[in-house]
Amino acid sequence: MGGNSFGTLFRITTWGESHGRAVGVIIDGCPPRLDITADDVQRELDRRKPGQGKGTSPRKEKDRVEILSGVFEGKTTGTPISLLIWNEDVEGTAYEELKDIVRPGHADFTYQAKYGIRDHRGGGRASARETVGRVAAGAIAKKILKAEGIEVLAYTLELGGIRAEKMDYTAVGKNALLCPDPDAAVKMEEKIEKTRLRGDTLGGIVEILVRGCPAGLGEPVFDKLEADLAKGLMSIGAVRGVEVGAGFRVAGMLGSECNDPMKPGGFEKNDAGGILGGISSGAKILLRVAVKPIPSISLEQLTVYSSGRPVSVKIQGRHDVSAIPRINPVCEAMVAIVLTDHWFRQEVLKRG
Amino acid sequence: MGGNSFGTLFRITTWGESHGRAVGVIIDGCPPRLDITADDVQRELDRRKPGQGKGTSPRKEKDRVEILSGVFEGKTTGTPISLLIWNEDVEGTAYEELKDIVRPGHADFTYQAKYGIRDHRGGGRASARETVGRVAAGAIAKKILKAEGIEVLAYTLELGGIRAEKMDYTAVGKNALLCPDPDAAVKMEEKIEKTRLRGDTLGGIVEILVRGCPAGLGEPVFDKLEADLAKGLMSIGAVRGVEVGAGFRVAGMLGSECNDPMKPGGFEKNDAGGILGGISSGAKILLRVAVKPIPSISLEQLTVYSSGRPVSVKIQGRHDVSAIPRINPVCEAMVAIVLTDHWFRQEVLKRG
Amino acid sequence: MGGNSFGTLFRITTWGESHGRAVGVIIDGCPPRLDITADDVQRELDRRKPGQGKGTSPRKEKDRVEILSGVFEGKTTGTPISLLIWNEDVEGTAYEELKDIVRPGHADFTYQAKYGIRDHRGGGRASARETVGRVAAGAIAKKILKAEGIEVLAYTLELGGIRAEKMDYTAVGKNALLCPDPDAAVKMEEKIEKTRLRGDTLGGIVEILVRGCPAGLGEPVFDKLEADLAKGLMSIGAVRGVEVGAGFRVAGMLGSECNDPMKPGGFEKNDAGGILGGISSGAKILLRVAVKPIPSISLEQLTVYSSGRPVSVKIQGRHDVSAIPRINPVCEAMVAIVLTDHWFRQEVLKRG
Amino acid sequence: MGGNSFGTLFRITTWGESHGRAVGVIIDGCPPRLDITADDVQRELDRRKPGQGKGTSPRKEKDRVEILSGVFEGKTTGTPISLLIWNEDVEGTAYEELKDIVRPGHADFTYQAKYGIRDHRGGGRASARETVGRVAAGAIAKKILKAEGIEVLAYTLELGGIRAEKMDYTAVGKNALLCPDPDAAVKMEEKIEKTRLRGDTLGGIVEILVRGCPAGLGEPVFDKLEADLAKGLMSIGAVRGVEVGAGFRVAGMLGSECNDPMKPGGFEKNDAGGILGGISSGAKILLRVAVKPIPSISLEQLTVYSSGRPVSVKIQGRHDVSAIPRINPVCEAMVAIVLTDHWFRQEVLKRG
Repeated sequence: MGGNSFGTLFRITTWGESHGRAVGVIIDGCPPRLDITADDVQRELDRRKPGQGKGTSPRKEKDRVEILSGVFEGKTTGTPISLLIWNEDVEGTAYEELKDIVRPGHADFTYQAKYGIRDHRGGGRASARETVGRVAAGAIAKKILKAEGIEVLAYTLELGGIRAEKMDYTAVGKNALLCPDPDAAVKMEEKIEKTRLRGDTLGGIVEILVRGCPAGLGEPVFDKLEADLAKGLMSIGAVRGVEVGAGFRVAGMLGSECNDPMKPGGFEKNDAGGILGGISSGAKILLRVAVKPIPSISLEQLTVYSSGRPVSVKIQGRHDVSAIPRINPVCEAMVAIVLTDHWFRQEVLKRG
Repeated sequence: MGGNSFGTLFRITTWGESHGRAVGVIIDGCPPRLDITADDVQRELDRRKPGQGKGTSPRKEKDRVEILSGVFEGKTTGTPISLLIWNEDVEGTAYEELKDIVRPGHADFTYQAKYGIRDHRGGGRASARETVGRVAAGAIAKKILKAEGIEVLAYTLELGGIRAEKMDYTAVGKNALLCPDPDAAVKMEEKIEKTRLRGDTLGGIVEILVRGCPAGLGEPVFDKLEADLAKGLMSIGAVRGVEVGAGFRVAGMLGSECNDPMKPGGFEKNDAGGILGGISSGAKILLRVAVKPIPSISLEQLTVYSSGRPVSVKIQGRHDVSAIPRINPVCEAMVAIVLTDHWFRQEVLKRG
Repeated sequence: MGGNSFGTLFRITTWGESHGRAVGVIIDGCPPRLDITADDVQRELDRRKPGQGKGTSPRKEKDRVEILSGVFEGKTTGTPISLLIWNEDVEGTAYEELKDIVRPGHADFTYQAKYGIRDHRGGGRASARETVGRVAAGAIAKKILKAEGIEVLAYTLELGGIRAEKMDYTAVGKNALLCPDPDAAVKMEEKIEKTRLRGDTLGGIVEILVRGCPAGLGEPVFDKLEADLAKGLMSIGAVRGVEVGAGFRVAGMLGSECNDPMKPGGFEKNDAGGILGGISSGAKILLRVAVKPIPSISLEQLTVYSSGRPVSVKIQGRHDVSAIPRINPVCEAMVAIVLTDHWFRQEVLKRG
Repeated sequence: MGGNSFGTLFRITTWGESHGRAVGVIIDGCPPRLDITADDVQRELDRRKPGQGKGTSPRKEKDRVEILSGVFEGKTTGTPISLLIWNEDVEGTAYEELKDIVRPGHADFTYQAKYGIRDHRGGGRASARETVGRVAAGAIAKKILKAEGIEVLAYTLELGGIRAEKMDYTAVGKNALLCPDPDAAVKMEEKIEKTRLRGDTLGGIVEILVRGCPAGLGEPVFDKLEADLAKGLMSIGAVRGVEVGAGFRVAGMLGSECNDPMKPGGFEKNDAGGILGGISSGAKILLRVAVKPIPSISLEQLTVYSSGRPVSVKIQGRHDVSAIPRINPVCEAMVAIVLTDHWFRQEVLKRG
């Protein structure tokens, strides 16, 4: 009940701190007789690694996943799957000088307020390092969904004020920023480099597209599909907003514009983003999340010591300029986990 | 597990269909020895009643709440509180002609796809009528929070493209549209009337402000305060987007702009919206939701019969032009329920 | 989280006090398109009514169930089913004189210690009246199971020291004490009458038999089938012990006696009681519960006032001599609810 | 939802197979600022090790626990605690010949029926090896309880038909069989040796005593303290029955015998076993579990191959003669976990 588990039928529990000994995840509710190898998981973990794009942190993370349980002779057995990734490069001495300083935009202040204690090294449990467990579990969810013909793709819609104008999904995997518009990707890279030199960081928007999802997933009233997706995505540290389909654009729409007319076989358009009344409609599911700039900047900031005394701080060290694109596979993981969970919940109804 | 419950320590379960016999809610986890009367609940229910503002449905709903359990001689006993509101004016014959038609923008299609059956009368379980139970439970949550000095206020930030420019919280209760800007409220009313005459409907944005919330509420990692708030708000039928603090604005911000510097005693500004790392910071909590236009419009729309055959439809009857302002107390209720739940979760940590 | 819900996929929430306005239950997770009428539920409620056997309370309970939601035109819709039964004959003035007295064997002392308040009328929430909701929900669970060929039967194995020697299941419905041995039933009735005259009460043992349950139900490790059954049964007020198969007899057995040898098509015997490693084996499931004597006796007992001051008390009024046989349908209900829940949990695995 | 988690506020999730790479547990909901060292956990793990008593398996298990997260500089931080114990001595080749044989009394048949696949090595997930995670988590629960003055002690009441006659709790830690009657312990040892020579195994009864538990723990209706205790204990593989206080003896009692009269300051006797109406009464909590004989016997047994073809089998190898006394610390762990969970649940009510 400490909030480290997610899902009902397909349920994950993550653990581990940024500079603790390891991070990991337990997956409870994975069906038996599924082919799973460490490579399946590793492939996804590699996608969230630093050093993928230019705009990402040069910290060397090997991040080799180990499967400790739940898989026997290459197949899942229905028992809990324990995945572990050792932390390396974690001496944490670099953080000693920040030990007593409340870093702006980080969770230092609130963890101390809540728990009366905190592991200050690299943000401890509040670090984005925690998402390694999510991505590892998401790899298995994605494999389950793929077998059902469902694919989840997260791409960079906007970064540092530059927006993708073209929507070429095949381009997403071909540029470091996972942008569907290669030209925009080039401009984003330039913006990142300029911002890095200034010691500052950038926000952006990630869009998540789900193709192949059948109608029927989602449980009204509280466990609406978009409600669980919103929770899953908003639980990612840097996310400050979530929208589905037309999202905040609906505020300015008329009902006659917003409604998606139906025709035999489907919808005329998809402003609903593939979800009606909390249940998937069979149309593409479309979500967007607002990603805040990385709070660790090397520019001078006013803040306080733990004691409350004022101080100014520059956060040194090798930090990403933007959580994008490393956050993209995390978004994919959360969406895949929610869909897998609701897939199983819907299976129960299909009987009889 | 059908998704009709919400919360962990303070847990509500709603039931009932639009044109069934009654709607209601069970609240499990309400502390004992709290003064609760039917009037406390009725007051909140009255706020979501139609006919409050001009822009609202003239359907006459008496909505008298009955407390069936959990309260003894005016005080809660710690046992589940059962609140029931009988449905009146529910002959449902008005809906007979729509019985086999899939109404655009409604959940008709997806309920049928999910369950293979649906109560077509007034949307059945998918109707906004379900929120009566939420508001009833929220009334109790708000009372619990008030005793701790926490207040939740939802107001209309935007409606039909008209945005509140002033932010006078004392004005909110004084106009039918619950708008903090009385001048904007007047324009909104005009827009509503014009739109009603055209047979169309309007969307908008509701902002929710929480004052008096102490630091420490929220459970990382998955049960972050904003994640649970996002789920709670996104579970309201008409909501298509949720944001906290600067929300989607963070996408265009630099880290040096987005971070809230600290000073002795608090934050210099509050773009974080009162939540850092999933935990309340003691600053005001600020949330916004995008509300889609009511899908029931009397303009002609293309759609299909349940059989898939095409048809055009005009939804007649007395419908609201906008879910705002009736949705505002529902937003308050969901936020109050989430905060109460996290308040109790944090109580456990305070010991020792 | 106040402990008034039970189950995961098939989840019930009961509410109501002995002398409150009504009692009821919400069933969340009932599949759609199931034929359910009030009569289906009423039939089971009638079985737990007083006045069924001679040994039961003459309090007149009409106990007419009303279905308030979740059923449309005679079929379930997949939305929560709300069942309500009004309390009648509940003036409660009879309890005024006991208001400040801690009745031995009842929950008066512990409710006061836990909540600092209690509804003293007839035991309030701690009353066996609460089980009306369980039996109502159990009626639906039994109907679901029956369609799958699974039957649950609870019968009186022992009462007041008299044990059934014959095991004729067809006899169970034919005597008021629900005993598989008609001769024992006669002796039990005599014992009840004698005990009633003395102002005392009797305990006994109920055995529950499940026929037709396929292999595969139950989730190791913690949600073993017998673990969930034990919880469900032990949650019935009067139950003080639960055992499966050979039960406490295993303590004196050798491994070579206790193991059930296998042969093609099944087991040679069934000391395991139909469950191995927490999962049903396809053999008959056999459970037994120890039922304590009704604590309300008209003999003089030493006890205290709420204030702690000593007093002696005789509990007057029309009380049952034994919780048996009215507890038998409650046992059936709990077993049926657990099996239905695990049936759905197993459905998820059957796919693919 | 695969059933590998237990508890609500203090929640554990175990993982790992008998002959997989490791076993472990995640504890979510442990309060911050608690002193915890690996030694605290190791001490309890050592108590469940084989080779403690004569009657136990000579398999050499080092079982060194590693704390991978949740503890910083010797103190808990409020984040999930991950405990891992590597499996050693696990080549599993010894199990190759049993690969296709359904061992009587084991979960081989039911796991295969449920999952369609099983890790046959040493019972896989169904092995008692899984309880390592429970005992590790229980060590932390016991530490939390101890700070509140609550102590849990499990001792051997009966083994192989020999029953403890004396009840000297100080003797429990002084003999290998954890028996409160040293003379009975000697006879039990003799019985074990004789039985071992015959290739057979023994059952018994473990009693669990809780001292220092205040009144008020337990949540009616379904989460009664004894209901959660029954579930926790019945979820231990070898347990076939659970009773509280007088347990099955109540079946033969009169109400006037069974009720515990009250006097100023407490109860005259304690047949209720410290729990009334699902809530602890402040008296000693007393539970008993029936432990079946270890099913692995070297005597010849009739059984079948996975294919269904009949075969006879002798289970060779070094196996315990009885699950007692190694099961005793597992019982303590489960009781401690349930009490800790309910302690936290009750904390929430204490406010205000």
